[in-house]
Amino acid sequence: MRVLGLDPGTATTGYGIIDVVDGRFRPVTYGVIKTTAKDSTSKRLQIIYTELNKLLAEYKPDSAGIEELFFGRNVTTAVTVGQARGVLLLALANANIPIGEYSPPKIKEAVTGYGKADKAQVQLMVRNLLELEETPRPDDAADGLAVAITHYQYQHFVSLYD
Amino acid sequence: MRVLGLDPGTATTGYGIIDVVDGRFRPVTYGVIKTTAKDSTSKRLQIIYTELNKLLAEYKPDSAGIEELFFGRNVTTAVTVGQARGVLLLALANANIPIGEYSPPKIKEAVTGYGKADKAQVQLMVRNLLELEETPRPDDAADGLAVAITHYQYQHFVSLYD
Repeated sequence: MRVLGLDPGTATTGYGIIDVVDGRFRPVTYGVIKTTAKDSTSKRLQIIYTELNKLLAEYKPDSAGIEELFFGRNVTTAVTVGQARGVLLLALANANIPIGEYSPPKIKEAVTGYGKADKAQVQLMVRNLLELEETPRPDDAADGLAVAITHYQYQHFVSLYD
Repeated sequence: MRVLGLDPGTATTGYGIIDVVDGRFRPVTYGVIKTTAKDSTSKRLQIIYTELNKLLAEYKPDSAGIEELFFGRNVTTAVTVGQARGVLLLALANANIPIGEYSPPKIKEAVTGYGKADKAQVQLMVRNLLELEETPRPDDAADGLAVAITHYQYQHFVSLYD
């Protein structure tokens, strides 16, 4: 099973793709989709959409997880990240890929066993679970991989009860 | 010149298209793109995107205005409407349509001359400016027309200084 994880943002969207074979995780690819404030909002959304479509065409994930947004009271940030999230969800829907959504505490708990784990703990566990020599960089790519691991775990648990 | 106005939302996106000929506004079409909570978020975004693409293909607007979002402190609403706004902006970018963004007070001021006008005043002015027999329904469609009028006025003022 091949799983994509996404950590959405207008400037930087992190992604990670993993294969799960005999219960073991294998990293396939990870990285970030970057856009610049020099471009208009609509141009940036177009870049995010196009780049995700390329990843879907190349790696053909079976399923995808995406981080839910928590911003406290920052409504402006919520709107702009919501816009990026919208085009990511659209690309996934167009490719008929099932989607799961996970809050940051749920991701931390799925990866480390502790919902209030810090960023370093999450990254260390991502590295260990994927048997990587180094911590994935940049941080948003590691977050994308963490979402992919979380999504696999939830899909897997669900299938036990089918 | 043909101008599209959009009032974005996940459940209801209002739209209005107007022609401006010799300084007079003529309504071309207006209405709403509706989605239901029975569908997944990604499916709803796909519907909004597809329906806007159909409108763009049929009516070929030269330029488009879209309402900016103001939600006070409701971050959850900001994210979901942001998602709808994201796929609308994407469709406009893909069609190479120039985009203007306008806050609700700016739209009220452009249409009625008063930034704190109420909904009824805006609708009455939209009806008068477009020489319609009745107030456009539903409200979101009237809002779409108001955004189109606003966008034309701002584009027009800009062109005076070119």
